[in-house]
Amino acid sequence: MAKSLPVSPLAPAGGFPQMPAIAGVRFAAVEAGVRYKGRRDVMLAEIAAGSTIAGVFTRSATRSAPVLWCEENLAAGPQGEAGYAIVVNSGNANAFTGRNGMEAAQRTATAAAAALGIPERHVFLSSTGVIGEPLPAERITAKLDELVAHLSGDGIGDAAQAIMTTDTFPKGCARSVGIGGTTVQIAGIAKGSGMIAPDMATMLAYVFTDATVAQPVLQQMLRELTDVTFNAITVDSDTSTSDSLLLAATGRAGAPAIDRADSADATAFRAALHEVLLDLAQQLVRDGEGATKFVEVQVEGAVSDASAKRIGMSIANSPLIKTAIAGEDPNWGRIVMAIGKAGEPADRDRITIHFGDILVATDGWVAPGYREADGAAYMKRAELVIRVGLGLGEGKATVWTCDLTHGYISINADYRS
Amino acid sequence: MAKSLPVSPLAPAGGFPQMPAIAGVRFAAVEAGVRYKGRRDVMLAEIAAGSTIAGVFTRSATRSAPVLWCEENLAAGPQGEAGYAIVVNSGNANAFTGRNGMEAAQRTATAAAAALGIPERHVFLSSTGVIGEPLPAERITAKLDELVAHLSGDGIGDAAQAIMTTDTFPKGCARSVGIGGTTVQIAGIAKGSGMIAPDMATMLAYVFTDATVAQPVLQQMLRELTDVTFNAITVDSDTSTSDSLLLAATGRAGAPAIDRADSADATAFRAALHEVLLDLAQQLVRDGEGATKFVEVQVEGAVSDASAKRIGMSIANSPLIKTAIAGEDPNWGRIVMAIGKAGEPADRDRITIHFGDILVATDGWVAPGYREADGAAYMKRAELVIRVGLGLGEGKATVWTCDLTHGYISINADYRS
Repeated sequence: MAKSLPVSPLAPAGGFPQMPAIAGVRFAAVEAGVRYKGRRDVMLAEIAAGSTIAGVFTRSATRSAPVLWCEENLAAGPQGEAGYAIVVNSGNANAFTGRNGMEAAQRTATAAAAALGIPERHVFLSSTGVIGEPLPAERITAKLDELVAHLSGDGIGDAAQAIMTTDTFPKGCARSVGIGGTTVQIAGIAKGSGMIAPDMATMLAYVFTDATVAQPVLQQMLRELTDVTFNAITVDSDTSTSDSLLLAATGRAGAPAIDRADSADATAFRAALHEVLLDLAQQLVRDGEGATKFVEVQVEGAVSDASAKRIGMSIANSPLIKTAIAGEDPNWGRIVMAIGKAGEPADRDRITIHFGDILVATDGWVAPGYREADGAAYMKRAELVIRVGLGLGEGKATVWTCDLTHGYISINADYRS
Repeated sequence: MAKSLPVSPLAPAGGFPQMPAIAGVRFAAVEAGVRYKGRRDVMLAEIAAGSTIAGVFTRSATRSAPVLWCEENLAAGPQGEAGYAIVVNSGNANAFTGRNGMEAAQRTATAAAAALGIPERHVFLSSTGVIGEPLPAERITAKLDELVAHLSGDGIGDAAQAIMTTDTFPKGCARSVGIGGTTVQIAGIAKGSGMIAPDMATMLAYVFTDATVAQPVLQQMLRELTDVTFNAITVDSDTSTSDSLLLAATGRAGAPAIDRADSADATAFRAALHEVLLDLAQQLVRDGEGATKFVEVQVEGAVSDASAKRIGMSIANSPLIKTAIAGEDPNWGRIVMAIGKAGEPADRDRITIHFGDILVATDGWVAPGYREADGAAYMKRAELVIRVGLGLGEGKATVWTCDLTHGYISINADYRS
């Protein structure tokens, strides 16, 4: 993008976190000039032999060539014990680019496989940026030797920078967890700011660990946790053609292998992984295009968890609610509207609505003690919790979103990403 | 609302149309001060004895007390041959107002029934405006004598004014059609500007005719035509708690009775009614909050009409497409995205996209002859047609929407309707 956007007011304090090196993973990033000038726009991650890898992707019917390529990789399964690579470019999504799209993906993978001495089917690809323009793969392949020469265990921060588009800050998160007396590390990066919506895998996110995790367990954990992290956020209800989340486990920590999803080690690892995925997903919301408010929507008492999530998303995607939040207007009537339109069971007279700890509505009407001034004061916060009780059952869900502001309009009416 | 919004640039040329009187229907509008000051905010329509009446309403799970009241009226059926009344207020939606809501509706209906000498269950009610505040029914009932005193066959324009909220122009449409050698008139009014979305009945609309139509036929026509008119528009994907569409037929033209939906007379009447409903629905889009572009989305070649409509609505509701249109950016990649996220069958390599007559994309990629300058020039128009071909089957649908602008944010971040 030509102009530089100001950093989101919701960016995590302290900037990009201190990230541990993950034994068995090295990174590099270069300026390849795919579309942007004067910034790194291609990153390479090299993952050691013997690792396992899992992925989830957008369910879009018009998903991009790199997404199709990655899906084929996972379907083909491991080609022996060889290492893996992830090549990501920003500036061009290589989506809706016809036959040319898959050819560009193929050329990139072939070149990366040769440069690293691994099978083509071990090269995972992502592209993010404008849709419908041919990907100049030669600009990427021309830089592969330089990328390989610069691979470093400390390069994850540069990688996080290289995958940004309208993002205003790079996104990373790390956790450690003890597995059988050995500490394993989990480190992830992500990008995303607009075209963020439910029913997807995510935007681009890459998570690495030195734990030892069997591939089926890794895949199952990733699928399940995606539902309560990346699939529980929305910026604008628009689902990308390119959403990809990859998770690689190198085993280099030497911790006991996790080969069953229900073991104590699996539970501990899963909890740490959940924290990393949720933190990254929330960072996407914090960098939502034009966002000035970070909003958690908690729904409880629904007939099922799925019903609670649909009601939560109906609230989180409502333009009228998101604009009211932008205007710091405690317009709880619009929440009633969004509950009503969700197409899920709801009984007006059992609904309760809280702003944080403030009881706003109950018994089918405004709460007797609610004062508009309290709601208005609460809405001035940068981080809001909207809590809805349905009073029908045990179903619950939490989703995260941001407000809808003039900034979103400005970014998307003027900028072609 | 305190401040006055400028009239939409998409308002029909010529202003409020010349509307015929409908024999058997009289209107009045007054300033009752329900919420707004210095403008008419309550309207009464009196419908002669012997008329038939049909209605469709929002499917929201949190629909308003007046909607529930009207549904009960229709379920109860006609109470003899007595006339009907419609009482509508703006400024307060009487939604999510607990027991108080239905009591306010009951008091209004009881008073109107007494003033006109008709059964309570023949009084239809609508309220539009802020959600969650008690309706001051006494301000409406206090004005009933004044309303009855001012009833006039020429009052439909005043009625159209009285039901406005964020609307920037009153909405009306009329058609005539020959039924068995007799000309019958159809005249309708509507309001709506925000909280306009699919899967609803409509915002508020009232249509009157002097044709003679059996109630089951009237109801069936209204239900079917709503799907291709009011249920085929969207401003912001938010479905109201109050959407109501009522259609009354007085029979006063003396034309032959339409008592079968498949007769030639029914077909002719239905076609004219379709025109009125579609025109009114499109006027809601033209007055969409902040709208500067009127957009028709045509989808063809889908596996079914329902699938085509869902894809059309995915395009029409996409914030990224609507902001691109606001910015006059021919960003057709976002249309590909919206097709992909619709959850409907689509084959990337069979998709075609047109802007008006300009072929933009075909065979899974940008069309060979497409020039960005042509697309950019087209987007400068105030009225746009986006045409999508799926190449899969015979399913087709057309939906209408507007762009998403700074004006929408300003109206909804600052104004509590």
